[in-house]
Amino acid sequence: MEDSYLFNAGKGAVFTHDGKNELDASIMYGKDLNAGAIAGVRDVKNPISLARKVMQVSKHVMLSGEGASDFAKSQGLEIVTPSYFYTDRRFKALQHIKNEEKISLDQDEKTTMLYSDPDNKKFGTVGCVALDKDGNITAGTSTGGMTNKRWGRIGDSPIIGSGTYANNKTCGVSCTGWGEYFIRAQVAYDISAMINYKGFSLGEATKEVIHKKLTKLGGKGGVIAIDKYGNMQAMFNTVGMYRATMDDQGNLEIEIYKGH
Amino acid sequence: MEDSYLFNAGKGAVFTHDGKNELDASIMYGKDLNAGAIAGVRDVKNPISLARKVMQVSKHVMLSGEGASDFAKSQGLEIVTPSYFYTDRRFKALQHIKNEEKISLDQDEKTTMLYSDPDNKKFGTVGCVALDKDGNITAGTSTGGMTNKRWGRIGDSPIIGSGTYANNKTCGVSCTGWGEYFIRAQVAYDISAMINYKGFSLGEATKEVIHKKLTKLGGKGGVIAIDKYGNMQAMFNTVGMYRATMDDQGNLEIEIYKGH
Repeated sequence: MEDSYLFNAGKGAVFTHDGKNELDASIMYGKDLNAGAIAGVRDVKNPISLARKVMQVSKHVMLSGEGASDFAKSQGLEIVTPSYFYTDRRFKALQHIKNEEKISLDQDEKTTMLYSDPDNKKFGTVGCVALDKDGNITAGTSTGGMTNKRWGRIGDSPIIGSGTYANNKTCGVSCTGWGEYFIRAQVAYDISAMINYKGFSLGEATKEVIHKKLTKLGGKGGVIAIDKYGNMQAMFNTVGMYRATMDDQGNLEIEIYKGH
Repeated sequence: MEDSYLFNAGKGAVFTHDGKNELDASIMYGKDLNAGAIAGVRDVKNPISLARKVMQVSKHVMLSGEGASDFAKSQGLEIVTPSYFYTDRRFKALQHIKNEEKISLDQDEKTTMLYSDPDNKKFGTVGCVALDKDGNITAGTSTGGMTNKRWGRIGDSPIIGSGTYANNKTCGVSCTGWGEYFIRAQVAYDISAMINYKGFSLGEATKEVIHKKLTKLGGKGGVIAIDKYGNMQAMFNTVGMYRATMDDQGNLEIEIYKGH
């Protein structure tokens, strides 16, 4: 998905206020709670591969900026020129949002940068959660963040516990949405904590966190999640969320709307 | 404390592998779950003030690198030349740890960068948790990270839920220690979740998280925490942790050792 121009991750990443593309990603293994994350990278073709390398090879969990790129180079990951991430559609979205910002500066400035795709009021972060036959859960998330983000902003996607979490004892979670609220609400880990400490099912936990806690805080977005029994859940408080599931028989389901 | 050369935060920050000082900090208000964080800043005198500005003024929660510095300038915060953060003691610690690294490269590389102060096997992150007379809890953390850190490494201190968390319904927590483990164990928010979902006391929750979960994972460090009733707790699995408390009568207690 990072190689497609359609999603706000890798190739199709949105633009920052300064007209750059800054990529965030993270991955977590539920087996040993190991994790890797990268933030603000401008020249690594596949940010999720870099996050995995951070987890597997470095002694750190989270790397950022040019340092993360240097690490990517040391690991032989594919480096691209920043222009690789240029797409007309995303660049126009930035111009659109900047014009709106000028108009709405006297009002609530926040409303102008809520969506990665402002024309369609959509987020576009990509994520994946999986349970293998040995009971190992993995969660991963990759994004270009929000159109018009500034000042080296880091969203929830590379934050373990906010945008990504996995624990074989409970579940795996990957988030998309207005990252600032997902950080403040601790969305990904909170779902795991509710299963672990309150005995909630995956459905109850995702519903409580998205439709009560996140919504009350003012946040918009959703999660995909899988629990240790293989139950799958997509929960969102937006109009739709592109998503697909596949079970152990290879049955594929693709959905956009039809929320819970 | 950021203005003292004694602590690993602000003026006394440790050096990165490349001989630079990169500062991380975060703050969270328990009243509205608002939060601000900065990572990898090299020229802002008081990182915790910048984190607070991010929370109060920007539409973001977390800013990083030069972008965060640009935001600091736009807010009129005090900027210093990077040499302001130079201290002989920390620079010598970097040389010491680099020599050890050469020796131990064939062994477990991780052991050479565990401590910010390798001679004394100490961490040095500074943190603060407070409860005011209106029941508002605030938590803040500031650090230079770990001596010899590389590749734009971000530790737990600027990660909401890992190094810092506050919620008026439960508690405020600030962490110090080997950050990678505090991220993987979700230390700060986990203490709050145990109080909220399991009915644990602050003492029970901090003990469970530090002495069972974090220790089992292999992590070293500690927390200071305060709950909504004003109970204060310092819990660590290291030999000592510099700490002080003050109650509403102004009674000050200062301790180093005497763990729980």
